[in-house]
Amino acid sequence: MQFTAQEISLLLNGTVEGDDAVTVDKLAKIEDGTTGSLSFLANPKYEQFLYTTDASVVIINNDQQLTAPVKATLIRVANAYSAFSILLERYNTIKLNKKGIEQPCFIHPSAQVGNDVYIGAFAYIGPGAKVGDNSKIYPNTYVADNVTIGKNATLFAGVKIYFDCVLGDNVIIHAGAVIGSDGFGFAPNPDGTYNKISQIGNVIIEDDVEIGANTTIDRATMGSTIIHKGVKIDNLVQIAHNAEVGSHTVIAGQAGISGSTKIGKNAVIGGQVGISGHLDIANGTQLSAQTGINSSITEEGKAWGGTPYMPFKDYLRAHAKLRKLPELDRKVYELEKLIEELRKGDH
Amino acid sequence: MQFTAQEISLLLNGTVEGDDAVTVDKLAKIEDGTTGSLSFLANPKYEQFLYTTDASVVIINNDQQLTAPVKATLIRVANAYSAFSILLERYNTIKLNKKGIEQPCFIHPSAQVGNDVYIGAFAYIGPGAKVGDNSKIYPNTYVADNVTIGKNATLFAGVKIYFDCVLGDNVIIHAGAVIGSDGFGFAPNPDGTYNKISQIGNVIIEDDVEIGANTTIDRATMGSTIIHKGVKIDNLVQIAHNAEVGSHTVIAGQAGISGSTKIGKNAVIGGQVGISGHLDIANGTQLSAQTGINSSITEEGKAWGGTPYMPFKDYLRAHAKLRKLPELDRKVYELEKLIEELRKGDH
Amino acid sequence: MQFTAQEISLLLNGTVEGDDAVTVDKLAKIEDGTTGSLSFLANPKYEQFLYTTDASVVIINNDQQLTAPVKATLIRVANAYSAFSILLERYNTIKLNKKGIEQPCFIHPSAQVGNDVYIGAFAYIGPGAKVGDNSKIYPNTYVADNVTIGKNATLFAGVKIYFDCVLGDNVIIHAGAVIGSDGFGFAPNPDGTYNKISQIGNVIIEDDVEIGANTTIDRATMGSTIIHKGVKIDNLVQIAHNAEVGSHTVIAGQAGISGSTKIGKNAVIGGQVGISGHLDIANGTQLSAQTGINSSITEEGKAWGGTPYMPFKDYLRAHAKLRKLPELDRKVYELEKLIEELRKGDH
Repeated sequence: MQFTAQEISLLLNGTVEGDDAVTVDKLAKIEDGTTGSLSFLANPKYEQFLYTTDASVVIINNDQQLTAPVKATLIRVANAYSAFSILLERYNTIKLNKKGIEQPCFIHPSAQVGNDVYIGAFAYIGPGAKVGDNSKIYPNTYVADNVTIGKNATLFAGVKIYFDCVLGDNVIIHAGAVIGSDGFGFAPNPDGTYNKISQIGNVIIEDDVEIGANTTIDRATMGSTIIHKGVKIDNLVQIAHNAEVGSHTVIAGQAGISGSTKIGKNAVIGGQVGISGHLDIANGTQLSAQTGINSSITEEGKAWGGTPYMPFKDYLRAHAKLRKLPELDRKVYELEKLIEELRKGDH
Repeated sequence: MQFTAQEISLLLNGTVEGDDAVTVDKLAKIEDGTTGSLSFLANPKYEQFLYTTDASVVIINNDQQLTAPVKATLIRVANAYSAFSILLERYNTIKLNKKGIEQPCFIHPSAQVGNDVYIGAFAYIGPGAKVGDNSKIYPNTYVADNVTIGKNATLFAGVKIYFDCVLGDNVIIHAGAVIGSDGFGFAPNPDGTYNKISQIGNVIIEDDVEIGANTTIDRATMGSTIIHKGVKIDNLVQIAHNAEVGSHTVIAGQAGISGSTKIGKNAVIGGQVGISGHLDIANGTQLSAQTGINSSITEEGKAWGGTPYMPFKDYLRAHAKLRKLPELDRKVYELEKLIEELRKGDH
Repeated sequence: MQFTAQEISLLLNGTVEGDDAVTVDKLAKIEDGTTGSLSFLANPKYEQFLYTTDASVVIINNDQQLTAPVKATLIRVANAYSAFSILLERYNTIKLNKKGIEQPCFIHPSAQVGNDVYIGAFAYIGPGAKVGDNSKIYPNTYVADNVTIGKNATLFAGVKIYFDCVLGDNVIIHAGAVIGSDGFGFAPNPDGTYNKISQIGNVIIEDDVEIGANTTIDRATMGSTIIHKGVKIDNLVQIAHNAEVGSHTVIAGQAGISGSTKIGKNAVIGGQVGISGHLDIANGTQLSAQTGINSSITEEGKAWGGTPYMPFKDYLRAHAKLRKLPELDRKVYELEKLIEELRKGDH
């Protein structure tokens, strides 16, 4: 799709400087701009590119001073960064504006599908499942029996939702994620074999949650594994049975949360972090990448690092010394010799 | 489905106290019980909930004393915990009792499919593949050429099995797991590029193995990557080419086992553990979460932790001191000064 | 398929010693050889097996001396290892020699599909997508709108490629991998909630790249996440938005690379390594398994280990001492007491 500078300016309530008929058909960073691209300048650090960019149109702040000639058409707005964000979102909405039911797909007669949905080819909507209005189920996605999906949700290609799970409104689940697989529960027998403990609970994902590609969230043994409102989870994250993640917590890639652990609200969990089972992690906790947590954290809003974990500042200090441990060891050895000499001298 | 207290009691060989006509249609923990739910009390710690629960029916031990009035109908049995486990399993069997062949699916004319199977829509059974009696192949699952799957196996949605792999009886594979992808084998050339080494082996998964969601198990370069009988593997685990996992070993989420490594029997591998290639890990080895193993372990039944690894007790002691390393460093510095003073005093 | 020793010898330009009519139908390691299998001997360490193997045919070097009678038919060639590699590759080519379009699949009318391709059942080729000649799209794979795939590429079962991504020639992507999912970008609001930042860039995968099973590579916020020519990526690896991986770099299983980080050429990234965002990692860098990188590496070709990282040799030395930290702590305590005594003695 092509837009003129004039059309974009109208959308953003802006003012055009230069050729308002010039057209753009893509978005680009100002330093990467080429003919036909639309860019923005918000950070003064990048001002130099305003005078050299090949972008056809650049959005700038109303108060941006020009210190050299500019080739691009300019659109002045109150806040160039948020104006550009609006365009990004608009662009994405158009890109992802799928509607309708592609064939072949499988929709069980007892399933309920809302209005204005997208059901891609090879998608599977099982018996008793419900898909809310305006939701999008991409190709090769599996929605099992009695799953409930809210409105405006997006399940990208190849997502798998096991039976009885419940997803709220505006939930986004990226390709390959698995929701509701069996919790890892086995009872050991005296002979070293294991009996499977049936996992009959489900997963509840509240509104506005986003879940990354190939992430796995296990169903509860009984009751529910719960991902509260507004949580954002990155790719390849593992969330075990009966865990609970508080609202607006963010979990980075490849982190793992073991069974029955409860994470508070507004926490930030770094990449590859591991958290043991049956723990409580306080609201606002911040865990740096690769941290290992093996006991509950009760103090709110504190930063931690290391395995086993310690306060983040202690972690930095301790590990800075770690590299010098061989030297410290040698020093102690020398001190021992010196003291031995001193003591001999004493006698 | 609804059951009366009477019907459940008959199934469990129990005795009803209270209204034997009351009905239940779901299972719940005693503290979460609501009208219509069936709970159990086995752990004395939870006895208080027996007098407050809203569950309609509670299973208790024959010898459970009552110290206050109970609203729920009671079913007395010899062992409340195992009685409830039986119900859990029965419940799950009903939930997962899929049968028949959904359309559209792809079953190659040369494939052999046993009796009483479930083949979901968009499942693919390739040329020469065999699926044993009572096995379930969920939607969007891919079973490639000449794969053999035993009896009573369950492959959940979106599982991918590459050609020539062999799966035993009662194997459960959760959604999105990949079995038989190429081992990561590349021969370096003098110019820094790599040649792919063809991976022509397979993966053998013996009876009673369960494999978690989005776990990956690579085929052998030649010969077989082998997962022995009764092994339980959690989600997002990586098992590399030519590895072998001994019977009844348990591997927690996000652990990784490198190429040609052999894990013994009855081992317990914690979450996010990493094990290097070409190692032997003794029977009964226990590795705590995030442990890194870079050499073979020959002593059986021992616990280890840390990266690089050390005996688990040493690991706990050493890491407890780690946080105090800056303090230790300061102490040594002060000792050096004191000794310097003492030595000056000597002269 | 069966081949005679004679046929194989012709293919390899070799010389037969023994029965040239004996047939083989599989490849095996010399120590695992059975009747009907073809093996090779290149490493002198395995020479003993030449005299005991049950393989029907063994490929050996022209200059291999025989010190005992050999039961197998021998094929002498200049280099037994490369001759066998050629057979491995030939074998694999035959195994994976899929052609044609299986039904049902979904190919949008506006998609362009080259000659001699394989499109498996339940594969999805979206609007405007292009698939080059001789490429193979396995069953249940999703190729979204406007994706471009080069020639001789292989996308195994259940791969998901989001819209606008570009894949070069000879690219191999293993089952379940996700290319082009949204980058993990959220702008925090003052109330603790997050706004999604639209991710409108793409992923570019250059020629000769191989990507492992269930690996995830996120699209750029704007611009491209780029995997350069010849890169080899193992299973369950996470590559975040706007990252760039230099040509002929190798990344082992479960490693994670955060947003906007640039890895140089010919680097070797070990398993479970984590690299923070916005860093530059020099060409030829080698990172041992589980290393954590939190700052840029400018020196080329150096090996590193530990979290936080240090030169690999320092890492080995420091961690060797780590286990003895409690002992060192005790020594320092005793030194303090001794010095205290000495000082008292002074007065």
